Amino acid sequence: MSTALIVVILCGALSIAYAAWATRSVLASDQGSERMQEIAGAIREGAQAYLARQYTTIAIVGVIVFVISWLLLSIHAAIGFLIGSVLSGVAGFIGMNVSVRANLRTAQAASRSLAAGLAIAFKSGAITGMLVAGLALIGVAAYFLILTGAQGYAPSDRVVIDSLVSLGFGASLISIFARLGGGIFTKGADVGGDLVGKVEAGIPEDDPRNPATIADNVGDNVGDCAGMAADLFETYAVTVVATMVLGAIFFAGSAVVGTVMLYPLAICAACIVTSIVGTFFVRLGRNGSIMGALYKGLWVTTLLSVAGVALATYLTVGFGDVGTAPGTILSGLKLFFCGIVGLIVTGLIVFITEYYTGIGYRPVGSISQASVSGHGTNVIQGLAVSLESTALPTIVIIAGIIATYQLAGLYGTGIAVTAMLGVAGMIVALDAFGPVTDNAGGIAEMAGLPADVRKSTDALDAVGNTTKAVTKGYAIGSAGLGALVLFAAYNYDLQYFVAQAKAGQGYGYFQGVSPDFSLTNPFVVVGLLLGGLIPYLFGGIAMTAVGRAAGAVVEEVRRQFREKPGIMEGRERPDYARAVDMLTRAAIREMIVPSLLPVLAPIVVYFAVLVIADKSQAFSALGAMLLGVIVTGIFVAISMTSGGGAWDNAKKSFEDGFVDAAGVRHMKGSDAHKASVTGDTVGDPYKDTAGPAVNPAIKITNIVALLLLAVLSHL
Amino acid sequence: MSTALIVVILCGALSIAYAAWATRSVLASDQGSERMQEIAGAIREGAQAYLARQYTTIAIVGVIVFVISWLLLSIHAAIGFLIGSVLSGVAGFIGMNVSVRANLRTAQAASRSLAAGLAIAFKSGAITGMLVAGLALIGVAAYFLILTGAQGYAPSDRVVIDSLVSLGFGASLISIFARLGGGIFTKGADVGGDLVGKVEAGIPEDDPRNPATIADNVGDNVGDCAGMAADLFETYAVTVVATMVLGAIFFAGSAVVGTVMLYPLAICAACIVTSIVGTFFVRLGRNGSIMGALYKGLWVTTLLSVAGVALATYLTVGFGDVGTAPGTILSGLKLFFCGIVGLIVTGLIVFITEYYTGIGYRPVGSISQASVSGHGTNVIQGLAVSLESTALPTIVIIAGIIATYQLAGLYGTGIAVTAMLGVAGMIVALDAFGPVTDNAGGIAEMAGLPADVRKSTDALDAVGNTTKAVTKGYAIGSAGLGALVLFAAYNYDLQYFVAQAKAGQGYGYFQGVSPDFSLTNPFVVVGLLLGGLIPYLFGGIAMTAVGRAAGAVVEEVRRQFREKPGIMEGRERPDYARAVDMLTRAAIREMIVPSLLPVLAPIVVYFAVLVIADKSQAFSALGAMLLGVIVTGIFVAISMTSGGGAWDNAKKSFEDGFVDAAGVRHMKGSDAHKASVTGDTVGDPYKDTAGPAVNPAIKITNIVALLLLAVLSHL
Repeated sequence: MSTALIVVILCGALSIAYAAWATRSVLASDQGSERMQEIAGAIREGAQAYLARQYTTIAIVGVIVFVISWLLLSIHAAIGFLIGSVLSGVAGFIGMNVSVRANLRTAQAASRSLAAGLAIAFKSGAITGMLVAGLALIGVAAYFLILTGAQGYAPSDRVVIDSLVSLGFGASLISIFARLGGGIFTKGADVGGDLVGKVEAGIPEDDPRNPATIADNVGDNVGDCAGMAADLFETYAVTVVATMVLGAIFFAGSAVVGTVMLYPLAICAACIVTSIVGTFFVRLGRNGSIMGALYKGLWVTTLLSVAGVALATYLTVGFGDVGTAPGTILSGLKLFFCGIVGLIVTGLIVFITEYYTGIGYRPVGSISQASVSGHGTNVIQGLAVSLESTALPTIVIIAGIIATYQLAGLYGTGIAVTAMLGVAGMIVALDAFGPVTDNAGGIAEMAGLPADVRKSTDALDAVGNTTKAVTKGYAIGSAGLGALVLFAAYNYDLQYFVAQAKAGQGYGYFQGVSPDFSLTNPFVVVGLLLGGLIPYLFGGIAMTAVGRAAGAVVEEVRRQFREKPGIMEGRERPDYARAVDMLTRAAIREMIVPSLLPVLAPIVVYFAVLVIADKSQAFSALGAMLLGVIVTGIFVAISMTSGGGAWDNAKKSFEDGFVDAAGVRHMKGSDAHKASVTGDTVGDPYKDTAGPAVNPAIKITNIVALLLLAVLSHL
Repeated sequence: MSTALIVVILCGALSIAYAAWATRSVLASDQGSERMQEIAGAIREGAQAYLARQYTTIAIVGVIVFVISWLLLSIHAAIGFLIGSVLSGVAGFIGMNVSVRANLRTAQAASRSLAAGLAIAFKSGAITGMLVAGLALIGVAAYFLILTGAQGYAPSDRVVIDSLVSLGFGASLISIFARLGGGIFTKGADVGGDLVGKVEAGIPEDDPRNPATIADNVGDNVGDCAGMAADLFETYAVTVVATMVLGAIFFAGSAVVGTVMLYPLAICAACIVTSIVGTFFVRLGRNGSIMGALYKGLWVTTLLSVAGVALATYLTVGFGDVGTAPGTILSGLKLFFCGIVGLIVTGLIVFITEYYTGIGYRPVGSISQASVSGHGTNVIQGLAVSLESTALPTIVIIAGIIATYQLAGLYGTGIAVTAMLGVAGMIVALDAFGPVTDNAGGIAEMAGLPADVRKSTDALDAVGNTTKAVTKGYAIGSAGLGALVLFAAYNYDLQYFVAQAKAGQGYGYFQGVSPDFSLTNPFVVVGLLLGGLIPYLFGGIAMTAVGRAAGAVVEEVRRQFREKPGIMEGRERPDYARAVDMLTRAAIREMIVPSLLPVLAPIVVYFAVLVIADKSQAFSALGAMLLGVIVTGIFVAISMTSGGGAWDNAKKSFEDGFVDAAGVRHMKGSDAHKASVTGDTVGDPYKDTAGPAVNPAIKITNIVALLLLAVLSHL
């Protein structure tokens, strides 16, 4: 098994090598004029300052959690936590540092051609993508190798399981802070800057006279790049770990346990290679379709991944019988089919999300049309689309659950989610090019590049809106499909402790515990409702935080306009750094409470029910909570991210003039366009702050529950 | 038991007598000027025409369902369905007919004093309230008496249970159509009329030159009065029936079964009397607080209901031991405490809803403040409030579930919901006065009454916004607390059939069925997700329908302005009837598909899972679906209704000038006020169409599942 693990780690290293090569290639390209470099420098400084502050704050929380894990669990668990959190931070840090260097180079390249702009922006995105997948895979595989190799633990030993779960927790903790903090920063800057700039002062977006404009571009990098990277790193790590843990539990004591735990890692390794290959197929075709270029890469990756999963299956579990898991006899062939289901689910979610958020389809068109009758109807139709957009993805996820479970039980579902996440490198690449092009547009505007450059970057940006929605739909979709796996990890872990306690093999805390997860148990209903509450409360707090941060930006910009009257005439330079600094403080301050909500909720619920009833009911309510948070979370997250993307592109549809049902053309600056700007403003915190943060919130609730079990098992 | 049932029916009759007396008293008061009578006449005509059309459409569906019930179940079930649907229709029909006569009388009385206006408006609301509670109670009690008395069935006979469930289904079916149809009508008129009148033509709300203004006032009556009445009738009937059915199942074959089924009816009878008494305490105090006057009535009712529930307990089950239900030994004292919990939950939900929707508290203030920076921030803050507003009610419901279940098991929870619904007469009275005052304001405006009359009706209307949100929170809260009861009815019904089949006592269809409601069963997760989808999809369709209806109104009004240029100069009269007629057709057409969604979904899910897996899994998925629809439904409904109410009152807060955080006063017509109008427009379909219709959608899903069991048991 050690050899196999080393091969897995080498595949992960290949993605690091790709990232290094791509970074050199991006950095080697033309940086443009001095003015562009100056602007990009300000963005870079701001982004680095924010990230430093964010990581410092998380580090304080991290040190506390590290010590607690050490004391309550073991040094191995504490180190696992450290690996998960540090690698997640590293992926975000490097990705963002490339992004803030690729932005001006993309603007410069776009002044040559759309294809050149796309090439640099996509390469920059692919660096983040490959780092996310590669570092996550290396982290999990290497630590698993160390624990089972050098440290000599059996693969299904509790120390190994606890350590892997802690690694997932480290990734989750970074993720929720980064998603929320970055989301509050970016949308506070965006909404606040637009309000005071576009609406009050009547200056265009990204106008250098707006003191919040650098902050807005900083936000793209810290939110849409670093925050998203942390989110997907977490999704990747937690999914792989949960599938491995499930394998460990199902096959504990069996000869195949090691292979079964290796299998998800092998799938990921194969898919990293196919993702790297896919990136080379992203090239603008003769029809000039950007989405077409991106899809070429995605389809190549997906098709190659079918072969990749087959190879991974053949080299690890084989295509024959594997063994017996609860309720089913596993064969490698069935598991292979489960992997294919995961890839199909990915493809369908990409399609559906594009339909709901892309320009040219009914949903976005209906929002554009509704803008013609005003602000209110724009928002009503946007909300209608956001609610409706949950239906098809949910049905796809349900079909995925049924198909994989019927094929190969819960472990099969885990393999499907693993395959789904396997191509994360490619998906993140499609997403992370968005903030680069968004920045490139801003730099082009501020540096006064010709209008057609901005047109190219805008075209790239519009596609970026859809791909951003796709990534979020994909992340939350994997959480939905993985819901069963996460809950099963909790359930079977609990069963294990209870059985051991009954047999007198330690774990005395679990003596006599008999959880009842039936819907007929009122504490299960209570748990479902409490879990269901988390995404709502969390979303409400996040939306308020953005509103507050945006309000502070408005104040700051107004103050600068008042105190430096030369700004509007272009005689004085605004104090960009102050706006960045103020938002940094606001975002860090506002992210703490909502981030702690899903961390503490499982613990509070467990002990509250323990006081009211008993251990069995407390475990039952906690388990139900894990599913409750997914049942509402999946709808909240999809509705917010798809709805927000649709609003954003409805606004963009006015840029070339939107022709309404009566045949009237509405241009930029028309009343209909203004109404569409309102919808976009509403969609901003929906799609970039509250919605995407639901995904880590779901995961962290599940991971904390698993850790709580581990801690209680040490009592 | 017959004597007791007759007493219950007499208490119900008392409320009819109250309604008759109050109607005479309302009709006896001054009708005001000829112009007012003319306007009110147009509203009345429109409302009656709409209701006639709506009932005709429902009647077609009703006849089909009647025949199907007869064929698949029994003539008794079909008659039960008929009773439920006809009485629900009657309550809405009479309530609305009083409402359209009370509006102008309220306007006239308000020209004398605020107190006089409140007196008439509230009395009109109380008529609807008492009819809803009285007719629902009489329907259930009388049919139960006929079945167990004249027809000689045992109280727990399947025929009795099926017939009562069918009665609930009749009420539910009317309710979902009336809520949706009325909601689409009223908000289509409101949003469309405002867009084209206020925004395009720049004329005030309710200006007689707006061709949609009569339609807007018609909408208040058909949506907020008739639609709401049908909704609460259904909530009342279904809750009582579910509690009775649970009693019948738990105590089948026991001597106390009749008493246990009688007990919820007795509680309702007692609370109807206390509600009637409470109405006499609604009188404007010296401080002039309208909310204070309404609360006086509510608190008197609630406090007297404590005594009422005690009396009902004493006279039926007594305070001693009652018998053994699953998992608990019931005593009358514990059941009495459960009733008190129901009343406390009602009080807390009223408080919390007032906090989230009332002027003068943080949430509405935060939306007003956010309006200062624009349309977008207004909507963001409104959505934040709507998400956040779900937390406290959910926690109250959870506390209610735990408290009642610990006290007296599922039957105890049923008694709590029954007591909660017992005071529905009073709650509906608080709500149904809203549309009357809204209409009175419109009539005052159109008839050119002095400005201070409009000020009085506006003050009443602002309170009406909060009480409307309260009623909806209360209805959905009872659904949340009743979730367990509805699911338990399904679960124990299914258990009964399975046990009988096993024992060879018929019900062959259930041979070998063994449902597994554990969260570890993937089909349960699938059911939860499918159920969770219903409120989202339903909400999306409803929002789109309102947008479409509003768009049609805009077209129609523009056409009239174009074709009759004299309208704007006041020389020509707009064709009000055309707008009403067009909306009637739009509302009826748009209500069909979404109404059928929750009716057909349980059936489709059952048979779809049956094809994929087997009967056991199909029953499991269906059961989980029933809880899934509540888990998301409660959040969707509360967030929409509270958020919408908050938006509406944030707009109202500008009418006397809103002083922002910087001390600036923003008046009506300011930019901040315009932003608040956008929020109100968004909130309109949220709070009056999609949100409230979720409650009947939840119930109907549950009731259809119960009927499906009944139908399958006849196979």
